[in-house]
Amino acid sequence: MKPEHATGNTDLIGTIGRLSDFKRLPVEALPDLAAEIRTFLVDQVSRTGGHIGPNLGVVELTMAIHRVFDSPRDRVVFDTGHQSYVHKILTGRADGFGLLRKRGGLTGYPSQAESEHDLVENSHASTALSYADGIAKAHVLRGENRHVVAVVGDGALTGGMCWEALNNIAARKDLPLVIVVNDNGRSYAPTIGGLASHLSTLRLDPSYERLLDTVKDTLGRTPLVGGPLFEAMHAVKKGIKDAIAPQVLFEDLGLKYVGPVDGHDLDALLGALESAKNFGGPVIVHAITRKGNGYQPAEEDLDDCLHSPSSAFDPETGKPLAKSAQKWTSVFSEELVAVADERDDVVGITAAMAIPTGIDKLADRHPDRVFDVGIAEQHAVTSAAGLAMGGMHPVVAVYATFLNRAFDQVLLDVAMHRLGVTFVLDRAGITGPDGPSHYGIWDMSVFRAVPGIRIAAPRDAATLREEFREAVAVEDGPTIVRFPTGAVGPDVPALERVGGVDVLATGETKDILLVTCGAFAANALEAAARIAEHGFGVTVVDPRWVAPVPAALLPMAEEHRLVVTLEDGVRTGGFGDALAKELRDAGVDTPLRDLGVAPGWHPHGSRAELLADLELTGQDVARRVTEAALKLTDSPAELRV
Amino acid sequence: MKPEHATGNTDLIGTIGRLSDFKRLPVEALPDLAAEIRTFLVDQVSRTGGHIGPNLGVVELTMAIHRVFDSPRDRVVFDTGHQSYVHKILTGRADGFGLLRKRGGLTGYPSQAESEHDLVENSHASTALSYADGIAKAHVLRGENRHVVAVVGDGALTGGMCWEALNNIAARKDLPLVIVVNDNGRSYAPTIGGLASHLSTLRLDPSYERLLDTVKDTLGRTPLVGGPLFEAMHAVKKGIKDAIAPQVLFEDLGLKYVGPVDGHDLDALLGALESAKNFGGPVIVHAITRKGNGYQPAEEDLDDCLHSPSSAFDPETGKPLAKSAQKWTSVFSEELVAVADERDDVVGITAAMAIPTGIDKLADRHPDRVFDVGIAEQHAVTSAAGLAMGGMHPVVAVYATFLNRAFDQVLLDVAMHRLGVTFVLDRAGITGPDGPSHYGIWDMSVFRAVPGIRIAAPRDAATLREEFREAVAVEDGPTIVRFPTGAVGPDVPALERVGGVDVLATGETKDILLVTCGAFAANALEAAARIAEHGFGVTVVDPRWVAPVPAALLPMAEEHRLVVTLEDGVRTGGFGDALAKELRDAGVDTPLRDLGVAPGWHPHGSRAELLADLELTGQDVARRVTEAALKLTDSPAELRV
Repeated sequence: MKPEHATGNTDLIGTIGRLSDFKRLPVEALPDLAAEIRTFLVDQVSRTGGHIGPNLGVVELTMAIHRVFDSPRDRVVFDTGHQSYVHKILTGRADGFGLLRKRGGLTGYPSQAESEHDLVENSHASTALSYADGIAKAHVLRGENRHVVAVVGDGALTGGMCWEALNNIAARKDLPLVIVVNDNGRSYAPTIGGLASHLSTLRLDPSYERLLDTVKDTLGRTPLVGGPLFEAMHAVKKGIKDAIAPQVLFEDLGLKYVGPVDGHDLDALLGALESAKNFGGPVIVHAITRKGNGYQPAEEDLDDCLHSPSSAFDPETGKPLAKSAQKWTSVFSEELVAVADERDDVVGITAAMAIPTGIDKLADRHPDRVFDVGIAEQHAVTSAAGLAMGGMHPVVAVYATFLNRAFDQVLLDVAMHRLGVTFVLDRAGITGPDGPSHYGIWDMSVFRAVPGIRIAAPRDAATLREEFREAVAVEDGPTIVRFPTGAVGPDVPALERVGGVDVLATGETKDILLVTCGAFAANALEAAARIAEHGFGVTVVDPRWVAPVPAALLPMAEEHRLVVTLEDGVRTGGFGDALAKELRDAGVDTPLRDLGVAPGWHPHGSRAELLADLELTGQDVARRVTEAALKLTDSPAELRV
Repeated sequence: MKPEHATGNTDLIGTIGRLSDFKRLPVEALPDLAAEIRTFLVDQVSRTGGHIGPNLGVVELTMAIHRVFDSPRDRVVFDTGHQSYVHKILTGRADGFGLLRKRGGLTGYPSQAESEHDLVENSHASTALSYADGIAKAHVLRGENRHVVAVVGDGALTGGMCWEALNNIAARKDLPLVIVVNDNGRSYAPTIGGLASHLSTLRLDPSYERLLDTVKDTLGRTPLVGGPLFEAMHAVKKGIKDAIAPQVLFEDLGLKYVGPVDGHDLDALLGALESAKNFGGPVIVHAITRKGNGYQPAEEDLDDCLHSPSSAFDPETGKPLAKSAQKWTSVFSEELVAVADERDDVVGITAAMAIPTGIDKLADRHPDRVFDVGIAEQHAVTSAAGLAMGGMHPVVAVYATFLNRAFDQVLLDVAMHRLGVTFVLDRAGITGPDGPSHYGIWDMSVFRAVPGIRIAAPRDAATLREEFREAVAVEDGPTIVRFPTGAVGPDVPALERVGGVDVLATGETKDILLVTCGAFAANALEAAARIAEHGFGVTVVDPRWVAPVPAALLPMAEEHRLVVTLEDGVRTGGFGDALAKELRDAGVDTPLRDLGVAPGWHPHGSRAELLADLELTGQDVARRVTEAALKLTDSPAELRV
């Protein structure tokens, strides 16, 4: 059962075919297993890329959770599921790491299809406490005696959903719910040891409980104590203060708190979790961990702790093996800095992703003009609205998948107030290894419904620079600039620009108008060349701005016999639907076919593999367009009549 | 300048033509003005309906804010803008109350078009602190010496955005930002008076500040203090504790806190706000107010404090003048209780709107099976996902406009996990007096993009009951049942049901297929009768489920010559686009015209007035469909060829 590819010792990992194998290991073997897991993770993830830093930080924590709780009877929910690699190993999936995040291989997040121990597949942050609240309530209603364990990072606690959930959990003293705060925030220099361990035990002792009950009864009669809101607001800090000054007990408790516990001390973790389990009601266990723990290159990467190298890296140094080509992100990043140098009013906003979105370069240059708001997309958008009301032009740089979290704020707070805010959506369209929860395929459908919004889909580096500049020049409503993940291809020059629409290629005859959005331009040109072989003349145009639909497309559509749209987004309500509506409204009855991402939950894999699966390569597009054209006619000449 | 309709004394109100008039009034006159305003509000709002309770609670608070701060130079942001009536009076708009929330009259929320003193028009809760954060940051960047005042209710603090904002504000000691917490929560029985007032003053005294700095310096060196997260978590509670036990100063302060202050004591409020203004950094002023204060019927309405009577009421009793017909909400409410009686697994969730959504009836019957999560739509959805994972079938009852706040949670947390959760969207479509921020017109466009979702649009009470039951029978994905506001009309019987599609009317000939969604059925039937007068045969069908599009519509479309869709939602990406796509994909080339709400920010008014403005009455539909048909042909007979 020794996993393939593993170069380190995997004697213990090799014995774990299922969770019960791990649970049967003698306690004395666990430190060795932890060491094996660390080596194994570095070996494996250095080949595939993946979330190495976070997982090295939770080796002991995950082991302790699975020793103390009884999954799948007890239910373990990981917030931001990328911290589930150790969980995958302990539940018998070490064998799969050779294909981690590869098509057909292990997912990078929990997956119900992989294991009965995986429950929540969502990898958006700050959701775990809400899931856990619901699951625990269901258990209580059904009279099932099961625990729920939610593992949440300190970063995720900056998200408002955690606050909403804590506020509810604190009101339910009966929920058997353990919230493990995986605190790897490096702004904290934890004091761990005797006092903390002692307090953890003390605090869950029944006699201590009775004391607190007395205190609560007393305080309960004082006027300003009460209400889950204030109790929850107080909960985490309260516990910390106890650890510093245990004599300060004269307070109500919203949520029982255990900690801080050294997240790399197995014994301390086992003790804390055991106590928490036995307590009965909701408990916070505060574990201090170190991201990248035990792996020198990650520990030394102070900015990022090797959070998630996207591709293979050298296990000795942590450095990427291949020098990557220029990425979309860095083109945006450069242009943002250039624009900000010219315009004092341009500011940047990121939701805890300064480096991945490239906004760090602006922060280096103009530190007072970048705001990292935490994992808080809603606040990012509405504070941007406020900045715009105050006379600034905010650029909110965010992954496409995450702006979905702030639809209402874009709609009402920005658009209804007609404010100039630019949203830069990185990782738009099909992304790849991170799977469906990270696909950026909904933005064109969802945000198109926002009145007055303008959405640009640049096709290359040159148009990204150009359209970003056009976007930040708009001061009376929101703009979106969307581009995909990865390396940007060579520039795709236009033959001419007509009414804002770039004409990229023309055919012998005006049979087919192929309207391509964003980075699909290269596929469209390849397709056009292939279609031409069948005798059809193809005009390829890039609207540049996909919302509102450029009026210049209407006469173009009218003078062709078939219109085909091609977009890197879900077909439902996307650009194809938008152009079709404009044609209907204008009474242009040229048939239209829209190609895009079929609705559904597509699996993980590389972007290229997924585009092939979705029949969106140049070759696929050629075949599908030709088929559509031939359905309308028996010969190209007839189509032209 | 005496406002029309006012029956009470308005001598002082009558002198206020602009804010400066109010600011010039002698302080001694303010209590009389407060009394006048209360009488005026009851007089006026009893004629029009509106948010009477909340505004009676903020009379003195609003007066104090405008005495201490200098709007529009200083900027006042109201969270849930329905508490802005007093602000409207003080800024010279008393004259407009005769047409409050009527077409062409005063809006029920702040409005930039009405006044330079109105900034944020959004009426969704929990956003004000984020706006204020952005505005204040802009002021600092631009070197402008202006204060921002955000007025937020204690209820709104349950929303996660407030937490996200506080977390950011606490990290910026330099923002001149005053957060006024309007605390009318009746779970608190406030102690107000000497101690609290004394503390408010004390706490902002410079010498006290120096003491705190010393404390902070000391604590700053202890390991676990620091980081805006924990500071903010601590902020509000911290202040409250101070009031109880002022000797407990040995804590760090995240945000300066003043209070609690009696929100109906003008002198105390003026003192607290003045201190807060002079402090320089972000300050929370905690005012205890009483919703409906000074108006007996509101004070005695313990459930709701006459929060917002939707129509005229008797000023003496607070009771509605007209007995209303059965509402959509109560039909749903009854059916929910009936289903819950039959099925133990059905539970209800509301985001602080148990009464307006009708879920209170379920709470009366099965109190352990209803969860009011606070103003926290995101948590409502994801905890529903958790409940479904735990084996329950949650029914989340929410206004259509508010589910927009949880798109990502519906998409990933519910749909991607294929969980049976039913969303009941009340106030879907064009609503009316509350204006654009409350329109429920986006749900069909936005949620249609969620893979696997099913959306029902019942046309009457009978189909609401039926489709709700069909919805809660779905266990492998999310369902939405949407219906409009107001009284439900008479049932509209079907002639027959074909593949799930109800045929409501048939014509002499199969010229036009009119596909009507939801409550527009009656308009559609009226339209069909009118169109028939022009010689066209009209078939009227109701798909019942608008997503996915019923396959039975395709052959129906094929055998007609023109398809027209009619929906109570924004046209962009709505049902019309959906059916058009299905027809394209199936190669059905019958022309389609889609009628719905034009994209844009439509003003407030009655639903009937707005539907007329939007050309969606039966008469309008008849005219528009006839025009579309005549464009395709010169005579009905020709259309049939």
